[in-house]
Amino acid sequence: MRRVLIIGIGAGNPDYLTIQAIDALNKVDVFFIPDKGAEKAALRDLRTGVCARFIKEKVYRFVEMAVPQRAENFSDYKANVAEWHADIEVNYARLLREELGEDECAGFLVWGDPSIYDSTLRIIENIHAKAEFAFEYDVIPGISAIQALAARHRVPLNRIGESILITTGRKLAGGYLEDADSVVVMLDGEQAFKKLAGDFQIYWGAYLGTDSEVLVSGRLSEVADEIAAIRAEHRQRNGWIMDSYLIRKIEK
Amino acid sequence: MRRVLIIGIGAGNPDYLTIQAIDALNKVDVFFIPDKGAEKAALRDLRTGVCARFIKEKVYRFVEMAVPQRAENFSDYKANVAEWHADIEVNYARLLREELGEDECAGFLVWGDPSIYDSTLRIIENIHAKAEFAFEYDVIPGISAIQALAARHRVPLNRIGESILITTGRKLAGGYLEDADSVVVMLDGEQAFKKLAGDFQIYWGAYLGTDSEVLVSGRLSEVADEIAAIRAEHRQRNGWIMDSYLIRKIEK
Repeated sequence: MRRVLIIGIGAGNPDYLTIQAIDALNKVDVFFIPDKGAEKAALRDLRTGVCARFIKEKVYRFVEMAVPQRAENFSDYKANVAEWHADIEVNYARLLREELGEDECAGFLVWGDPSIYDSTLRIIENIHAKAEFAFEYDVIPGISAIQALAARHRVPLNRIGESILITTGRKLAGGYLEDADSVVVMLDGEQAFKKLAGDFQIYWGAYLGTDSEVLVSGRLSEVADEIAAIRAEHRQRNGWIMDSYLIRKIEK
Repeated sequence: MRRVLIIGIGAGNPDYLTIQAIDALNKVDVFFIPDKGAEKAALRDLRTGVCARFIKEKVYRFVEMAVPQRAENFSDYKANVAEWHADIEVNYARLLREELGEDECAGFLVWGDPSIYDSTLRIIENIHAKAEFAFEYDVIPGISAIQALAARHRVPLNRIGESILITTGRKLAGGYLEDADSVVVMLDGEQAFKKLAGDFQIYWGAYLGTDSEVLVSGRLSEVADEIAAIRAEHRQRNGWIMDSYLIRKIEK
């Protein structure tokens, strides 16, 4: 029976790998490695580096896969993403059929955790549900950027008895939820934090867990410009950026 | 300089330990192990078992600490928790002063992730801020129950472009947030899910990652009674339970 392992490799630091993830790596025959534009080299190096470091005896191979680009002009965000995922699904299904032997195991190495803002699991689930060919699949959790952010800032994500909202820059741009307490924002290319009205504490981080890690924290009104400047500088220097932040209202 | 490591050991399965956590374990001279009522034996065994399995050369010792009980009668929940934490803080400060040598390293082994609904980091931060004696401290993230739940159910925590709200049973009992999409509930002794009005999908799990793991998923209206019954049965059999769940409205 074909097998697919969706393996969370953590956010940046190879030391974030779990024993379970390392065991999973050592079962994989074929790793599917996405070719993903600007951040390609860095993410690719992390993935192949993790394999080189943690796979001991097993013989494995890499198959590069072109990741379709998301259409840039759209009226409906979710429909746009769904269409993009459908394109990726066609690719993945073809690769699993063509590149994976009957008794082989495929591995997808997911940055962070496969259950948090990553499409791999959803896509594999769709392929599985269509049942065009048989395979089993499993998910291995990994340390997410959210947890790396909190650990590196040494800050709890929640306040006592309060909630944590994990959301996107896109959602935050629509306004801060009045009911929310601590808010973690991922995928914020627009830097929605700059437009927030109110008195907030922010804990921001980029390239978490890597040698390029940058951390800034403070009162939002005092550090927002600094974060925007650092972000622009590093983005230009590295050709890509991956950042996230925790914000919450300052208690009176 | 005294050092304190707050180490996330993951939710239940020792294979959830990261390489970083294992490295941290191997630096610790003294592990402070809480004595915590009914679940004491199981959690204690997990902690000492992790040390026995992953610490190779280092000589270490355990110091048991009595964890004060939270007052049962209170009018203000947060004040009640704050008071309880203050009691624990007095204990921890005394132990660090009395049981830890000048150049030694202390370890607190936190179930799951230290930044998600755990008080250890907050308490150590308070002791550090009071500066009655000098020490450094660091936080090592771990796989949280939330991630274990999602991985074991093989389900993404978020829907495309939507948020994830992590909250407590206490909060959920106050009503489902209309704006929320996916909601992860922890610390729900009251089984607030039973009182929810509306059409939800639920993914529930207890003793995640352990040999006693139980998983149930389905339409809330169809599985709520089953979950409540399983929960009661296992809680009685084991003397304790630790469970969590993901719920979201079923899309029309």
